[in-house]
Parts: sequence; structure tokens; C-alpha cells
Amino acid sequence: MPSTFPIQPRRATYFHVTVNGFVRSVRKQKRVAFAALGDGSSLEPLQVVLSPEQAEGLSTGTAVRISGQWSQSPGKKQSHELHAEEVALLGEHDAQSYPLQKKYHTPEFLRTIPHLRPRIPQNALLLRLRSQVIASLTSFFGEHDFVQTHPPIITSSDCEGAGEVFTVESAPDSSVTKATGEQVLLNDHFFRSPKYLTVSSQLHLEALAQSVGKVWTLSPTFRAEKSDTPRHLSEFYMLEAEICFTDNLESVMTLVENMLRHTAGVLQMSKIGEEILEARSDEHSKEEQDGTASAQDLHTRWSGMASASWPRLSYEDAIDLLQKAVTSGRSFEFEPKYGSALQAEHEKFLASHVGQGKPIFITDYPRDIKAFYMAPSDSVQRQRSDGETVACFDLLVPDLCELAGGSLREHRISQLLEAMKRQGLVAPDLDGQISNLQWYLDLRRYGSVPHGGFGLGFDRLLSYLSGIPNVRDVVTFPRWYGRCDC
Amino acid sequence: MPSTFPIQPRRATYFHVTVNGFVRSVRKQKRVAFAALGDGSSLEPLQVVLSPEQAEGLSTGTAVRISGQWSQSPGKKQSHELHAEEVALLGEHDAQSYPLQKKYHTPEFLRTIPHLRPRIPQNALLLRLRSQVIASLTSFFGEHDFVQTHPPIITSSDCEGAGEVFTVESAPDSSVTKATGEQVLLNDHFFRSPKYLTVSSQLHLEALAQSVGKVWTLSPTFRAEKSDTPRHLSEFYMLEAEICFTDNLESVMTLVENMLRHTAGVLQMSKIGEEILEARSDEHSKEEQDGTASAQDLHTRWSGMASASWPRLSYEDAIDLLQKAVTSGRSFEFEPKYGSALQAEHEKFLASHVGQGKPIFITDYPRDIKAFYMAPSDSVQRQRSDGETVACFDLLVPDLCELAGGSLREHRISQLLEAMKRQGLVAPDLDGQISNLQWYLDLRRYGSVPHGGFGLGFDRLLSYLSGIPNVRDVVTFPRWYGRCDC
Repeated sequence: MPSTFPIQPRRATYFHVTVNGFVRSVRKQKRVAFAALGDGSSLEPLQVVLSPEQAEGLSTGTAVRISGQWSQSPGKKQSHELHAEEVALLGEHDAQSYPLQKKYHTPEFLRTIPHLRPRIPQNALLLRLRSQVIASLTSFFGEHDFVQTHPPIITSSDCEGAGEVFTVESAPDSSVTKATGEQVLLNDHFFRSPKYLTVSSQLHLEALAQSVGKVWTLSPTFRAEKSDTPRHLSEFYMLEAEICFTDNLESVMTLVENMLRHTAGVLQMSKIGEEILEARSDEHSKEEQDGTASAQDLHTRWSGMASASWPRLSYEDAIDLLQKAVTSGRSFEFEPKYGSALQAEHEKFLASHVGQGKPIFITDYPRDIKAFYMAPSDSVQRQRSDGETVACFDLLVPDLCELAGGSLREHRISQLLEAMKRQGLVAPDLDGQISNLQWYLDLRRYGSVPHGGFGLGFDRLLSYLSGIPNVRDVVTFPRWYGRCDC
Repeated sequence: MPSTFPIQPRRATYFHVTVNGFVRSVRKQKRVAFAALGDGSSLEPLQVVLSPEQAEGLSTGTAVRISGQWSQSPGKKQSHELHAEEVALLGEHDAQSYPLQKKYHTPEFLRTIPHLRPRIPQNALLLRLRSQVIASLTSFFGEHDFVQTHPPIITSSDCEGAGEVFTVESAPDSSVTKATGEQVLLNDHFFRSPKYLTVSSQLHLEALAQSVGKVWTLSPTFRAEKSDTPRHLSEFYMLEAEICFTDNLESVMTLVENMLRHTAGVLQMSKIGEEILEARSDEHSKEEQDGTASAQDLHTRWSGMASASWPRLSYEDAIDLLQKAVTSGRSFEFEPKYGSALQAEHEKFLASHVGQGKPIFITDYPRDIKAFYMAPSDSVQRQRSDGETVACFDLLVPDLCELAGGSLREHRISQLLEAMKRQGLVAPDLDGQISNLQWYLDLRRYGSVPHGGFGLGFDRLLSYLSGIPNVRDVVTFPRWYGRCDC
């Protein structure tokens, strides 16, 4: 197979190379033509010098194989260039109708062609970023003795009890007669009863953590929400981890902090990180209007994430801070009030004022505004006298706000059952009739052990790290309410 | 946090340790008690020596934290043991009703408790095996400049045209009035039109390969098949890769071969590999009745996979071999016949007679029994005069048969369109009306380039490597027709 570029010159003079790639642009003059070639491995194009005859048939988007001499370039933009000897077109290309001509395209337009959008060098860079972050997480968890797992996608359980789930059925099979009751059941539901796409792997990870102690997964997660925001998708990747033998929320937060510090550190030192910053420095005003973060912004984000000792403050202290801000004249649409959920505007204020560029943890929320499975706050100082709090955290980052959430899990069966009743997951008089979650209660019935974990929106993390403000633009084939192209 | 074991003694004498774990078994004598402790990190238990009082409340399955002296053991089964000083029960445990008492359980019974089954040391080992294989694949592809991607799970396309798909809908929303046509559409389908769970990521990977050249994914895949075999699941992980700039099937096969050789090599050299062999040598007759492979079988499988130069033979030669076998007295249920698909019995014969323990590639099947997207055979020698063949392969391994399949993809738009018509994916008179796959045709319309790739059943690979004969027992929460527990 021919070698691919980018090619580093091994000698001061020149040598013969063959490269494969796609034409990014071509400039034809009377006696000579220049083509910029890319293969997705680098933002930087490779300059090819051709005769006007060789350049015939080349347009933006054409796939080519070019052989020639790799020589020092008299141009200022590149140290070397390829003097073409043989040019082969590798396949068809309808240059006239090609939607990705070399000019600015709005994100909205690009979302209508998700199958072609990855060919834009910036989008190829996003693919490489995703791959690098996956690899750095895989090595982080491996080094920390976590077992990577594949929890199920089709489940019986709705983890949060939130209800906005997708249902899964096989296409109707009219050929089978509905003779017996059994037949009817099987035909009505492929799995005998209604099943859903997972909204979180947490419950299943809890079962796996009791097997091997520390587990993680990076797997697809689904919400049938009709949210139309830059931060929500109907299908997204979630990074989740669960640890047994801990009764200490601090240890879970430290894990999240170490993991993200590792990820940001790898990014800062990598070629991909360099390229992202480079791309952002070159940006034109149109991209700025999209809300794409500048190189300086990204530098701040990455440094904050790579730094140590992220602030940790309780929900109660956060409310105090917000109320003091109101007293000092800051106005919010929603009044900050103990017992109510933090609104995006509150989180935004906290993330930018408390962290000084670092991510921050908000801990120990009131029990009644959090999910049923959380354990009571583990630190006496953090317990309030006037209401119960739970040992949980949200991780907030500037601009984007909530990136991750975690908690200690209630590991005592009667308290867990109480919480499920309180949140209406089981009718109080139907003790034991919560068939969907009996298996989850079993985890407390047999060999129960204190444990905790977290979940992190992986696509949001990539959005934050890359500075692309809309999560629909960091996922290649994004799905949201009313939209599922390709 | 307390340290976890297995602990390697650092001194000849003893020192003080604290371990967390679950009691695997406990043996109480008059003056002393012995507990075997496990935490999933090792098949080997840790022996704890306790007083009868300390052992009170300990049963198979209890979660405990034990501190004490780590000392040389007079016993023959272990070099060291833990002399308990403090014993803490970490949570509740209903020893009476615990289903996993220390005895033989049938695979069928264990499948009814998938949430508890991972606690069996052998199943914890399977979780660790999965994690190790993922990690070794991640590093293999990273070293070979492949970009790891997350293709979509919810899609519009049915890759093989096979039809056995799951449909995805949001739970019905009765609160929204069906006023306008638009509203009705949105309410009837969350994504405006019917959507499915992916049956293969190949088509989407082809789009991504045109961005960054070489891509791979390990992601969930779904088939609503009613197959009831040890090799089929409704939800399974598929490893898929796609490479641009190749018109050579050999290069795709070599990639598969190198990848699996790497995986088997890592396994052979690893602690997990050692443990699997150890477990299989200890096996009792009951496990053998399950069909679990013996240590010797596994040794052969791993060596075969770690060896070089796997046989590659054409479908035509395979049929010849099968027919010669029939002439020599071998009987098959289905007659081997050129133009018909290879049956499992044929594959089994080929895998065991041709490979001598190595996996084998069968290449260049007749066009009409393969998927629409395959390119014609690339080697003139392999082209038959009496019928067209395609540049594809199936990878067969002894016992399990088909493990992977791949091909060059048809990259010429008119030939692709022809193939789609031939296979009934588009009505011949409705040129251009194949709305679901227009985007896929676009990949050939714009910057088309020769490419190829493969897909491998990841859970089947783990089944083969671990010797667990039923894929339902290597997946923690298996889903198949009529069954989706937890």
C-alpha cells in the first residue's frame, strides 16, 4: 500500500513519495497549478505542484493518488511541497453539486449533511479528538484497576424514574397467529413485556461493581426528551463508573478530578491539542458568531481542568453565595432558594465566580430534589438540621455548566425501599410489587456493600474541550427531537 | 481508603493489612474458623484465619472488611494467610435465601439471576477478560493510526436489507393535541419517521473513513431475530473497521489477522490467560457437560490465533473440498453446491480440516448470496467464468465457525445502484426514490474512493477465547427472543 502523509522529510534534498488524499482546493494558473491535499490526519494541507494538464479533473473533494518528488518549497506557507509526476483519480466526484465548496458554511446547514460534514478538516479534527480522549480514558481506568464493562442498552428499568424513555419493539410479525395467551404475549412484545433504551447504566454497573470492585463504561444512553438546547441530544455517550467499598463522597470526587486532569493533561501535550488551538487562532469572525470558543478561552479551560484542588462547596453554601449575590444587586430570573433545584443561570454564576477557571463540585443537595438511590450525606458538618441532604455532587464547568454528577448509593435495603416509596416508584401498600427493580433491591439483600459512582456526559466533555458550543456539532450523526438524519 | 488484595508479601515475616471482600466460603471449627475471601481481582481466594466469634455472621456472599496480620501459611493451598484482628460486616446479607451457595449451578439457572451471576469468581474473570481484550484492541488500533468512533445506534438504515430490526419510539404523549399535520407527524414518530436500532455500523463507518482514512468502533448492535442458538443474541457488541484507499481484499484480511494475533498474544502472556487455563484444568465433570472447552482446547485455540499465515481459500475451492469430502464418504445434511450459502456444518468441516487449529478465511463468494454493497472480486485468478463473485471473506474458527466477515465496498455509484436494484432495495423504475440510502449513495457521488472493512462479533470472540460455549454466558445481561432480564 502506498504511504500516506504527513511526511517528514528525511533528507535535505528530495525523494519520491506517493500520497493518497482528497483535494481541499485547487488553484490553476497558466503554466502551473497548485492543489491543497488532505487526508484527515492533519489540519495542515499538503501542497502539490502540478502541470495544468495534471490538474484537469481535480476539484474540491476529489479523491486522488499522487506520486512525485517531495521537495523544499519556495512558498512561505509550507516547508515542503510535492511535485506531481503521476496523478490518478480514485473515484467519481460530482464537483458541480458538491455541497462542501471551500467557503464558510453555517452549523445549521452542515447539520443537514452529517454524512459529508466529517470531511471538513475541523470536523476530522473533532473525530481525532474523540478517539484520543477515549484512548486516554481507557489507559487512565486501566492504570487504576478499573474493569471496562458493557452494560445493556435494552433494559427493563428507568433509572431516574423520569419517564422520558424510548420503547423498543420488533417490527410487527403478522405471519404468526395469536393462538395461545403465551403466543400473544410474545408477539405483542419481542421480550414478553415493554422494554426501553437505557437512560443510564448506573443500576447495572452497581451489580457489576459487586463482582470486580471498580467498573467503568463508555456507552450509548438515550432520552426521549423534547429539549431543544445546545446541550441535549436524544442519543449520547455517557461515561459512568462505580466503586465498591467506599463510604466517602470525597473519594468519588477525587476520582472524577484525577480522571479529567489526566484527560486535559494529555490534550495539552498532544498534537491534536496544538491543532485545536491553531485552528481557533485562525478563526474568522463568522466562526466567532457561532459561539466557538477562542484559543485563549480554550487555554483557560484546559489549564483549569489540568490544575489541582478543584473547589468543593455544599449546595447550602452555594445557595448562600447566590443569595448574597442577589443582595449585592445581581438579578436572576429564578430566585435562589434552599430546597429548589439550581437553575442553569445559578450554575453559570457559580461556575464562573467560584472556580476561577477550575471546575467546581456542588455537594450535598436536599434529598427531595435528587434521585431515589442516593445515600444520606456522609459528613456530619454537611448535614443540615432542618432537612436531609444526600451524599451527591454535580460537577460544573464555566460556560457549559453541568458536566457530571455522582453520589454514594443507598446500600441499606429498608432505606432504599423507603426512598423508592417516597418517590412514587412503588405504591406504599404494594410492598414487593416493584417487579422491575426487584433485582436492584437484591444487590442490597445479598452481600450489600457501601459504594458510589458517577456519570459524565461524554459529548458535552468534547464540546467543552473543543470549544464547539453545540453538542450537535461534536457528534457525527446527532439525534434530537424530530431529527435523525442518515 | 484501605488497600485491597491480592497482596504480595514484601517481607519474609508478617505485616498488618486491611482487605475488603466477599466471603466465598467459611468453615467453622471448634477453636478456629477459616474464611475464603474474594474481591473479583483474582480467581484464587485469600484465606483468613478467625476465631469462632469473629466468624459469626459470616456466610457465603457477605461483604466484609478485615484487618490483621499477613503471615506465612502452614497450609498447602496458599503461601500466606490473614490472621484476623478486626472483622467488620459492611452491609446486610440474607444468607438463607442467597441463590449462589457454594455448589454447582447450571448455566440455565444462572441466566435467571444475571445481576448476581457476576459474583461467581469465573464470571468475574470473564468481566476482566472482556476489559483486557477491549484494552488490547484499543492499543492495537491506536498504534495503527485508526480513529475510534461512535457511529449512531438509532438509524434510518437497515444495512443488510434483512429486515429483522427493532423499532424505536418514544412513549406515547397523549397531552399534545394533534392539531396540524406537522404535529401529527411529530407525535406519531419522535423522529418524524420510523427509526431502528442499528444492525451494523458499516454504512456510517464508510462515511467516517472518508474523513480520517481508517476508523474503528466497538459498539452495540441489534437484531430482532428469533434465533435460539448459543451463538445469537438480540443485543451484542460488534467490532467494525473501515479503511479508505485500498482496492485489495488481502490488506483487509491481513488487518483482521494482525488484530486477532495481537489479542491472542496479549491473552497468552497475561495473568488473565493463566487464570482461565487454571480454571479449566480444575474443572469438574459437570462443567465439562456444559461444553466448556478444556485447558488443552483453549491452548490450541489461542496458539492457532497467535500463529502466522492463516489459510485463505476461495468459496469455489471450499465447495470443491466439501464435494470431495462427500465423495470420500462424509455426509452432510445439506449438499455442498456452488451458489448456495455455506451451512454451519460445512463451515465446521472447513474450519477443522483446513485450518489445523488456525482460523481460516473463505473468500470471493458468489455475488447473489452476499450483501449489496460488496465490490467485485479484485483478483483475476479468483474470478469465475460462470458467475460473478465479490471481494469478500468470512473468517471461520473451529467449533464456533463464523467470527468475522468483511469485503471491499462497491465504490462506483452506478454499479452500487444496480446492486441495490438487483437486491430489491430500490424499485427499478423509481430511480432516486431510495430516500433512506441517498446519503449512502452520496459517499460515491462525492470524492468516492476504493475502500473496505470488516465486522467481528465481539461477544463471540470472547466466547471462543474463554471456552464458554454459549454467548449468553459471556454477556452479563444477555437479551434474546423472549428474554430481557433486569
